[in-house]
Amino acid sequence: MTQNDTIAAIATAMGQGGIGIIRISGDNAGTILRKLFRSSSKSFTDFRPWVLHHGHILDAKGEDLDDVLVVHMPGTKTFTGEECAEIHCHGGPAILSSVLEAVFSLGARPADSGEFSKRAFLNGRMDLTQVEAIAEMIAAPAREGVRLAQAKLDGLLGKRIAELRTRLELVRMKLCVAVDFPEEDLECLDPQEFTDDIASVMEAIRTLLGNFDRARCWRDGALVVLAGQVNAGKSSLMNGLLGRKRAIVTDIPGTTRDFLEEHLTFDGLPIRLVDTAGLRETGDIVEQEGVRLSRDLASQADLVLLVVDATRGLGQHERELIASVGAEKVLLVWNKVDLVEEAQAIDSAGCDLVQISAKLGDGLDKLADAIRSNILLRSGEAKEPEAGDLVPNLRQSHALEQAATELEGLLDDLAMQVPYDLLGVRLETACSILSEITGETTPNEILNKIFESFCIGK
Amino acid sequence: MTQNDTIAAIATAMGQGGIGIIRISGDNAGTILRKLFRSSSKSFTDFRPWVLHHGHILDAKGEDLDDVLVVHMPGTKTFTGEECAEIHCHGGPAILSSVLEAVFSLGARPADSGEFSKRAFLNGRMDLTQVEAIAEMIAAPAREGVRLAQAKLDGLLGKRIAELRTRLELVRMKLCVAVDFPEEDLECLDPQEFTDDIASVMEAIRTLLGNFDRARCWRDGALVVLAGQVNAGKSSLMNGLLGRKRAIVTDIPGTTRDFLEEHLTFDGLPIRLVDTAGLRETGDIVEQEGVRLSRDLASQADLVLLVVDATRGLGQHERELIASVGAEKVLLVWNKVDLVEEAQAIDSAGCDLVQISAKLGDGLDKLADAIRSNILLRSGEAKEPEAGDLVPNLRQSHALEQAATELEGLLDDLAMQVPYDLLGVRLETACSILSEITGETTPNEILNKIFESFCIGK
Repeated sequence: MTQNDTIAAIATAMGQGGIGIIRISGDNAGTILRKLFRSSSKSFTDFRPWVLHHGHILDAKGEDLDDVLVVHMPGTKTFTGEECAEIHCHGGPAILSSVLEAVFSLGARPADSGEFSKRAFLNGRMDLTQVEAIAEMIAAPAREGVRLAQAKLDGLLGKRIAELRTRLELVRMKLCVAVDFPEEDLECLDPQEFTDDIASVMEAIRTLLGNFDRARCWRDGALVVLAGQVNAGKSSLMNGLLGRKRAIVTDIPGTTRDFLEEHLTFDGLPIRLVDTAGLRETGDIVEQEGVRLSRDLASQADLVLLVVDATRGLGQHERELIASVGAEKVLLVWNKVDLVEEAQAIDSAGCDLVQISAKLGDGLDKLADAIRSNILLRSGEAKEPEAGDLVPNLRQSHALEQAATELEGLLDDLAMQVPYDLLGVRLETACSILSEITGETTPNEILNKIFESFCIGK
Repeated sequence: MTQNDTIAAIATAMGQGGIGIIRISGDNAGTILRKLFRSSSKSFTDFRPWVLHHGHILDAKGEDLDDVLVVHMPGTKTFTGEECAEIHCHGGPAILSSVLEAVFSLGARPADSGEFSKRAFLNGRMDLTQVEAIAEMIAAPAREGVRLAQAKLDGLLGKRIAELRTRLELVRMKLCVAVDFPEEDLECLDPQEFTDDIASVMEAIRTLLGNFDRARCWRDGALVVLAGQVNAGKSSLMNGLLGRKRAIVTDIPGTTRDFLEEHLTFDGLPIRLVDTAGLRETGDIVEQEGVRLSRDLASQADLVLLVVDATRGLGQHERELIASVGAEKVLLVWNKVDLVEEAQAIDSAGCDLVQISAKLGDGLDKLADAIRSNILLRSGEAKEPEAGDLVPNLRQSHALEQAATELEGLLDDLAMQVPYDLLGVRLETACSILSEITGETTPNEILNKIFESFCIGK
């Protein structure tokens, strides 16, 4: 593969829509478009750059594939930094595949996952944090997540990282001078100033890492697991929360064998709501498997909604679950309160508790609020993220952790009076880790891994 | 609602993609776009028509929502026949909703289903058959269906219908003259010529109706229902045909309780493959319900794949199913042949039969071929549809049936020497039905029904 061979893919989401786009990038983008396109204007001679032209796409046999708008974007000021073209078709999967086939037949090859973005990066249109921000924006389940990614797309995180690296490079330069001209070391490198410089960079890194932890639920969504005995009303509750039917609701124990996962947002907080198999021990292999998986899920959850039949109260299974995941992570959903006579003393085993009737729809709003505030309280981020908040992603956080570890080691070494020339290695490592974040020195394997996680067409 | 109020919607398919489009149509499309857009070019003053401009979308509070390309399409030569604008965002659902909200906040209203297409129709950009063809193209599961719709999008069906109507109008004019000037009737209207004219239009209508029947499977896909005893291997077979895991495969009877529907194509022929609950009679309410539905489905199917355990052969349940749906509509899938000693005489109860081992993957290609040819043989359309084939949709076929019925009645009346002035009514009805097909006289209720079936954004 040379970098400028021509690639093509469907750039819009899969499925049916009014419009679907085929994106082409590379040296032959314009040539291929010219061969496929028949303008509906008699005065058409060639594409004007960045102008939408109306016409038809014809395949090699001359068969009319679709009525389209096309645009040619020559030069390097494109998304990928190379010549691009787009075909705007009617948004049907079969139409888009046919047109894409026609594009391939003229020498373009199928784009790999994330290859458009990779080219944008390799051609210097964006740094690595910006390219990653695009994927994060697209995947964001709610506006709050988009906002976090937007700051990164604007390059703010990349700039902050670059600034921290510059500060470390400056320290390193001073260190080099001190090593080369030891007689002048005190002038060049005051030990206290050295310590302060490193500590202040470390502090900045810790702040970014703190943002990562606090914003996790806003960015990735919180995992909320519905647990409880069969017939406690989990499926009805899930339907109630979703406001629509999805799970099969019957009076027969064990109906929900597979997990049902639904995505919803409570006031902007994205939630992955997973309904699990009942807690009941069972001789049925399929269901037994489900029960085991459901316990695993509960342990990973940000919050477990333990649905309890109010007419029965907590049983041994419920108490075991609470003990295993911890009472602070369990919200008891006291269901079927419409069937219980007046207020009785409730044993909540130390968990928060909300009383509802899933059947009547009572208490569901209160429950949604309780879910949201419980998750935010424990994540330490009770307020919504704001524009400009800098929140690294998982890869970036790992790198920041590594850089922080190097700098901590450096401070320890300094306290133990390790010679300056040995300290230089740690500083160099920290700088190189930071530049991996923005992509200046990122190894190819890591780059490939990043772009493979993108969709095709991005 | 006035026709030119400004509407907006997401025009690309739901889900994540590289690019997502917000489409705006109406008098304020440009004004709204101007308020939201900040160009990234310093020399930008206003949109040049049909040119993509790069910049940012800002909401009313000035928050940056996304990095976008926008295009303004003034005038009436647009898809809808009125001023349009498009915002090309990053293709994430949360981004697109935020940008759409911003568009609404400036006075656009959410587009109804099919409203963009409806405006295209009302503004005379397309006739009704063309607008319907767009929806059919988008929904087409394979290229063959796209091809059928493309001919209609090009207006070929509309033209044919208009031509038939013109021929009927001509006959009607002659009839009017004959009624008004009875002494000249023989000159104006030779009874044989009258009969021939009507018969030839009827013949043309019958041809179109025949195309509808023959092309049904190519257009809508064929319904193939998997039936058979529990443990005969239906789920394994479905997985084998799909080449991937979807159904839960276990050794426990009754695992598949809900229907699993998968869409695939065998050499361009779209298939809806539905896996049903086992045939076993059962006391379990959920499963009993499933068994009933599965019998209903089998009766609607284009083909029933009755999976039989080769080690057991046909039992009473299988024979009952074959008797109820008819042997010609059943393809026996003789599964687990790897477990059977050598060739034995097989009782296939008059059905076609293919031997396979779903577990080993043997015989699946042969089975796919048998499915395809069996369906095409019975639909009477063994070859693929070709470009230019005119195939009406369900609504159009209903109308054509009605028109044909009127014309048949007319011929009967003629044979019974009903007076000319009474014949005129039937001719007028037939003409008016034909013009409903192209939309010239289609009642509003029907128009609304047509456009409601479209996606939003189309």
